Parts: sequence; C-alpha cells; structure tokens
Amino acid sequence: MEKVIFLGTSAGIPTLSRNVPSIALSFSGTNEFWLFDCGEGTQRQIQQADLKLSKLTHIFISHLHGDHIFGLPGLLATRGMLGIKKDIHIFGPIGLEGYLKSSLDYSFTYIPYPYYIHPIEKEKFTTSNMLWKEGDIAIDCALLNHYVESFGFAVIKKNVKRNILVDRLVSLGILPGPAYKKLKEDGFVKLPDGRVLKKEEFILETIDIKKFCYCGDTAFSANAIVLSEGADLLIHEATFCADKKNKAAESYHSTVDDALKVAQLARVKKLVLTHISPRYDSIDCNTDQHDEFKKNIKGTGMEIIQAEDFLEVNI
Amino acid sequence: MEKVIFLGTSAGIPTLSRNVPSIALSFSGTNEFWLFDCGEGTQRQIQQADLKLSKLTHIFISHLHGDHIFGLPGLLATRGMLGIKKDIHIFGPIGLEGYLKSSLDYSFTYIPYPYYIHPIEKEKFTTSNMLWKEGDIAIDCALLNHYVESFGFAVIKKNVKRNILVDRLVSLGILPGPAYKKLKEDGFVKLPDGRVLKKEEFILETIDIKKFCYCGDTAFSANAIVLSEGADLLIHEATFCADKKNKAAESYHSTVDDALKVAQLARVKKLVLTHISPRYDSIDCNTDQHDEFKKNIKGTGMEIIQAEDFLEVNI
Repeated sequence: MEKVIFLGTSAGIPTLSRNVPSIALSFSGTNEFWLFDCGEGTQRQIQQADLKLSKLTHIFISHLHGDHIFGLPGLLATRGMLGIKKDIHIFGPIGLEGYLKSSLDYSFTYIPYPYYIHPIEKEKFTTSNMLWKEGDIAIDCALLNHYVESFGFAVIKKNVKRNILVDRLVSLGILPGPAYKKLKEDGFVKLPDGRVLKKEEFILETIDIKKFCYCGDTAFSANAIVLSEGADLLIHEATFCADKKNKAAESYHSTVDDALKVAQLARVKKLVLTHISPRYDSIDCNTDQHDEFKKNIKGTGMEIIQAEDFLEVNI
Repeated sequence: MEKVIFLGTSAGIPTLSRNVPSIALSFSGTNEFWLFDCGEGTQRQIQQADLKLSKLTHIFISHLHGDHIFGLPGLLATRGMLGIKKDIHIFGPIGLEGYLKSSLDYSFTYIPYPYYIHPIEKEKFTTSNMLWKEGDIAIDCALLNHYVESFGFAVIKKNVKRNILVDRLVSLGILPGPAYKKLKEDGFVKLPDGRVLKKEEFILETIDIKKFCYCGDTAFSANAIVLSEGADLLIHEATFCADKKNKAAESYHSTVDDALKVAQLARVKKLVLTHISPRYDSIDCNTDQHDEFKKNIKGTGMEIIQAEDFLEVNI
C-alpha cells in the first residue's frame, strides 16, 4: 500500500509543532519515496520520519515561494555528502533551476550525482496534462490559482494483478508447475504435447488504480477539481478558516470550505487539509459555516483529515 | 550577564540531535541577540530556544558553505512576515549579498524592513582587525584557515561601572542628593557654595571587559589565537577527534587537539567545542591523545565544554 507522510504542514512560517510544507509519497515494496515541496528543514523532518534519503528519487515543487523551496539546496547537498550516487529528478516552475544553480554555486556545493531539473512550462498545463511517466506510474499536472505560478500534481499508479484460472487449467489436465509460471510471465506457453496456452484464456487480469493528488498553494481552482477527479487521496491547502474568506481571496489561498468544495466536486475518497496558517493551532473552526458541506459530504462517505507533521495516511 | 545559546552544533549534515551551525549571543538587559552563522532550520531552533526574532539585530556569517547559510533567506522572510520593522545588519564574505539577492528574487520574497549587508573583504582581515563598532561593543574579525574564505569573530563588550566615593564626599560635608546624580551623569557638578566637584576625584571608574570569540570552520590557525587572546569564552570548531588528523587536514578542519591548542595559547577562560562531525555522538574520544593538553590546561583552570543544541553558556 502506498502512503503519504506529512513532513511539514504550516503555511509560510514554521511553528513549534508544524514545519513549512513538504509531503513524502512512499511506495510499498521498493520503499522509494517522492517529495512534494521542500520547505526549509525538510531534510531533518525526513530523518525524524525515519525515511532514508537514499530512497528519494523524485521531487515535485508546486511553486517557488520560499517556504516551499528553501530546504532544497541543503537536502541535495546532504544527499551528496552521504555518498548517495543515484540520480534524482526534480520538477518545478521555471526559475527553479536558476534558484538551485545560484544557491549551489554561491555555497561552493558540489553535487556528486546526476540531477535532472525538469522545468514545468505553464502553457502546457493550463488544463490538466501528463507531466511524466515512469513504468506503471503517470504524473498529471495542472496550473492552479495562485498569485505566482503554482502547480498541482496527480500521481496515478496502475497495479496489474494476474490471477491464473487454476480450475480451468486443471480441468484440461494441466497441473500447477513451471507451465503456470511461464504463462503468467510471458503471456503464453507451449506444452510438451504441442498445445499452446494463451493468457487471454487462462489469466484474469485486474487493474487496480491508485490516485493521489496534491494541490499546494491555490485559491479555489477548477483545475484542482479536474486534476483530482476520483482520487483516492486529495491533499489540498486550507490556509484559512471560512470566516477569513476575504483574507484568503487577497492572498490567493483557500479556506477550508474551498478545499471541501473541490474534494466534493471531484468525488475524492479521502481529503487531507494542510498548509495551516500559523495563526491556528487547528483549523477545526467555524463549524457552522461548513456544516452544510459536511452534511453533503457525509452521504459520499468521504473521509476528512487535518494534517499534522508526521501524520501517515494510506492511499 | 551575556550568554551564548547553541542553536546548531553539527558539521555539514544535521542529525536527530544536532542541527547545522548557528550560535546566538544574547545581551543581558535589552534581550537583543546576535546570530553567528545561520544553517538551515535556524529559525525553528530560535523558536525552540524561546528567543524572539524581533530581538535579532545582527548576523555574522563565517563562510559561505551551505550548512552555515541555508537558513538565512527563510529567517529573513519570516522576520518580514511577522511584521518586524526594525533594521538588521548582516556581515559575511563577499558573495553573501549575491546569494541572498538571488534566493529572495527567485522566491518572490519581499523584505519589508531595511537590511544592510556588510561584505567582509579578506584583504582587510589577514590579521585581526576591527570589523564593526557600536556603542560599547567592538567586533574584531580575522581570516582563518579553511579551503574557502572563513572568518573568525571576537565581540568585545566594555561595561564601565561608576562608583561614587561616598566617604570622601561626606567627609567634605556633601551628603547624598541631586549633586551625586549630576556628578555621576555629567562628570562634574557645581555646588551652590561655588565649589566644583570633578569625577576624577570623586568617582571610581572600573571597566569590565567581556570577550567572546567564535572560530567557525578552520584548521589550526594562528589568527584564531590572536583573535581569541584572553577571551572569556572561545567557541572553536572541533570537527574531528585527534585520530582523524589527516582527515581534518584534508578538509581544513580542526581536531579536538587543534582547538585545545588555540585555547591554551590564547589563554582563554572557557572553551566550547562545536561543529561536531555527524560520525560522532560525542567528541569525548581518544583521551590518550589529548591527555597532555588536558594536563597543561588543568593548571590554567580553563573550563572545556562540548556543545549541544540548546546548551546555554554564560560569558
């Protein structure tokens, strides 16, 4: 099972209990993980979360505000000092490459492994579009609604399960053995007696799709709905309570209600609210104002969680 | 009493118990504090140490390696977001200004208070020289011995105490009253009977000098000795144990013995070892090898302390 680990859940300024934004998406089996945003201090949060930096292979940056990127140069430098040689892919708005290059140059930091910076050109993502594909995983991206370019990401992982129809094979006198393995792996097998078995007849393929979506800094955005359509897990910013609607609008951020609305319209299964303004200990506020949403959502069975640092959520 | 608070004591890479370098020097009375180096995550260490960012007025950067500067853009940004308007002075090697400017520009960070970056030109500090003077405080600076330009700092604070010689005044028939106050404040007073009292005759001035010295990344350095001469407190890096002499030399760092040698030759009163390589939990190692130094130091009464994050040391 894939899971998400929240490494930083505060907006703008760290607090004693919340660091600035970063989210790890950890893949079962390989223990590889990807990072979404990398606020100052993320490398230490990674240590505390007991993730291994050697397992980090991809980083996605939503936008270039400092609280989302100031942890990146230090993390990359540490990765080098630890002797990790594996390459890493970094995706983010145009400007990320310049920021990294200048930070690394001024600090005389040598990165002893290949790192690839993939600039996200906003023209390609005015509507949701594929950003990257790797094996069974595709990453969609869409421009959100912030006062600097800010992108949302959706990770869609396809797990194909192949079950051999044992009864059917046994009824033809073919008992479990090497032929089963070959049929499963190659999709066909030729038996010693000349018969050819094809997967179409003897293997039931089921495809299990897991979808995770992260919408970092944004006001209410139609693109966020399209991007997160049917997601198993949507992580959406909720900087303000509903009573701070004007403040949210001014700063192109979301209220809790904005996030709930996106989740509801996109019919996601689980919503986690993050990027909590340091003015709140908790955003479980103004219940009157989003009672209506909560009522609507109740019927859908959507689970709503408020993020905390080091919270783990299964997808 | 001035005191030092260690905010980060690890070398290069943070660990679970030690953040990357930063030291706060806190002044009694005003509660103002100055920062020496500003590794990633320093702003959060400041919160944990219960220091107020609004009281931070000066920052001194020893050198431009990432573990000493990557916390600076975020700290300055947070200072702005908190609404602090007071100006701030930042001292560091040439290149610091470019680093800061590019980090703030790429991240669209607006700093809403005046900040002054004072570049340290190494030509002026090949021997110990005054860098800055403010009221009763002077800051000396000297180039140390690292593979990039690295500077040590000495803060010399002069406290002048003025004690009125009450017995002498009383014997002349001048009893405690407004004349005493005027004499103390203005240095002289004219009495109603025409007599003039001057401070030279009736006030005992004693000057109490406190000296704090910080030598960040450096191999053994003669300048460190000159800079820290007679200091009440010397903070010296000690990245390696004595058995890693070659490793220390290669990387232009100090062993524990190097730091002890500087402290001994400079006749400092208190030595704190910091910048501990993440390979050690503690640098209280290889006691055989610095037994000789310890023995010599014993006679001088020098106190030796190993830094830990959040350790406070009085000067």
